[in-house]
Amino acid sequence: MVPGVGLRTAVRARAPGSTSNIGPGFDVLGLALDLYVEVEVRDAPRLVVRTEGEGSDLPQDETHLAARVAVAVRGSDRIAVTVRSEIPVGRGLGSSAALAAAAAAAAGADDPLAVATRVDGHGENAAASVVGGLVAAPLVSGSPVVRRLALDPRLSFVVLVPDRRLETAKARAALPTDVPFADAVANLGRLALLVAGLSDASALVRAAGEDRLHQDARAALFPEAPELLRALEDAGAVLACWSGAGPSLLAICRSAAEAGPVREAGARALEELGVAGRAVELRPDLTGLVVER
Amino acid sequence: MVPGVGLRTAVRARAPGSTSNIGPGFDVLGLALDLYVEVEVRDAPRLVVRTEGEGSDLPQDETHLAARVAVAVRGSDRIAVTVRSEIPVGRGLGSSAALAAAAAAAAGADDPLAVATRVDGHGENAAASVVGGLVAAPLVSGSPVVRRLALDPRLSFVVLVPDRRLETAKARAALPTDVPFADAVANLGRLALLVAGLSDASALVRAAGEDRLHQDARAALFPEAPELLRALEDAGAVLACWSGAGPSLLAICRSAAEAGPVREAGARALEELGVAGRAVELRPDLTGLVVER
Repeated sequence: MVPGVGLRTAVRARAPGSTSNIGPGFDVLGLALDLYVEVEVRDAPRLVVRTEGEGSDLPQDETHLAARVAVAVRGSDRIAVTVRSEIPVGRGLGSSAALAAAAAAAAGADDPLAVATRVDGHGENAAASVVGGLVAAPLVSGSPVVRRLALDPRLSFVVLVPDRRLETAKARAALPTDVPFADAVANLGRLALLVAGLSDASALVRAAGEDRLHQDARAALFPEAPELLRALEDAGAVLACWSGAGPSLLAICRSAAEAGPVREAGARALEELGVAGRAVELRPDLTGLVVER
Repeated sequence: MVPGVGLRTAVRARAPGSTSNIGPGFDVLGLALDLYVEVEVRDAPRLVVRTEGEGSDLPQDETHLAARVAVAVRGSDRIAVTVRSEIPVGRGLGSSAALAAAAAAAAGADDPLAVATRVDGHGENAAASVVGGLVAAPLVSGSPVVRRLALDPRLSFVVLVPDRRLETAKARAALPTDVPFADAVANLGRLALLVAGLSDASALVRAAGEDRLHQDARAALFPEAPELLRALEDAGAVLACWSGAGPSLLAICRSAAEAGPVREAGARALEELGVAGRAVELRPDLTGLVVER
């Protein structure tokens, strides 16, 4: 071993959070949003974990996802891992995929997407965090096949972020094992309309956001969701849907001008329904994972 | 009534046939192909039906689909209807949708797409015949919502057209009432990959043609289909799938150069398996329905 190789400088990696599913696109679509997590990894005498921002209430030890990923990639726990995050945890905004991608990259992984996909068990959040923008990233034989899809820059996004968490594992357990053939076909049709509409805002219709596979099955986990979605659509969103496995909700608007009133209506609806949380306007991130050495 | 209004000149309408479903896109995708049907409608003392070309073995009377559509649209059976068709009937190439669209237009319908959709009971062939090119046209509340999708002009299409017919009603009866959740999700993912790949040939992968909803359920109706599909893919097609409800089979190739050997291999496979029929290279039609007054 060359002397001095152990004294590597810090590597910092940044990844955006993401929304996923997006109505009919269950386990397929991901869209990177401008909420970021930054992970820094440097050599140290022993494992040190420091976190700031979102998720800093989690234990700062070897059980932290960033530490687990970085240690596994590096093959050593003699590292210091620093995490600074703006992505709310357990809200359906892809925090674990973004964190895993950034931690893997900062630790020197060749393929941060593969690492992040393994953490999530599916690939659409990870792909959005790594590639940026709107992606389709279904698993084919266990690996995500990632394709960037066109995204009309006029589209604006409002997200309701409840303070409560909804664990993805619980949301997955709520899914049925079989579905009516007609529902499978209905989602296929909506997905095609959604992909067309996300590429051209003027072609986007409300029906493109309809889902018959997962949202209804999960409504018991977040009973206020249907009414919140309705409030967003009534206020002018073209469509509103769950963000990932929830509980965040996503509204898609044809323009920034239309997003303002939708955000305000969303904030009011949260308050009226007694759901602690906030309503935010987010922009797509088109860059994805960035690594600084 | 103004004298002479009864003596309308002939109206001719032409519509392309189409392939549909296209692997995962069951009841969603349609692609117009350069096989055409032309329908001419003119006033006459009594109903006269004349047909030439494909489908001319069908009864030339008031039961003919073109006559039924034109009489219904015109509100009178005092017409002469002439049909000239290149679209094989009952082979999954959208002959009835194209014929209905052309007959409705020649008879003066305001909305030939609505007429043709009612005839088929679904909208993707009708939309492809009317709009041309690649379309998504799922039914939403019983009416097709039509969106043109990008189609890479480099893509080339080979179609195997068996001499046998497969009635769509029979093919529909073979479909299951429920499907595994995982299969519904698998088709969603493939559909997104397919839409991405049809817009950019270099991004098209074989997995984008995989279907778990209808092809296997229908294989008993055309037992040689799996082997024929394999022969098309082995010869260089990116992917091969059923065309509509079959029995025609569609192969998608990245270029015209790759389509030649695929067509030849398809013709050989038909012969080796004892399936009477032909293998043809077809071009997308980008024009759709044309009406000449």
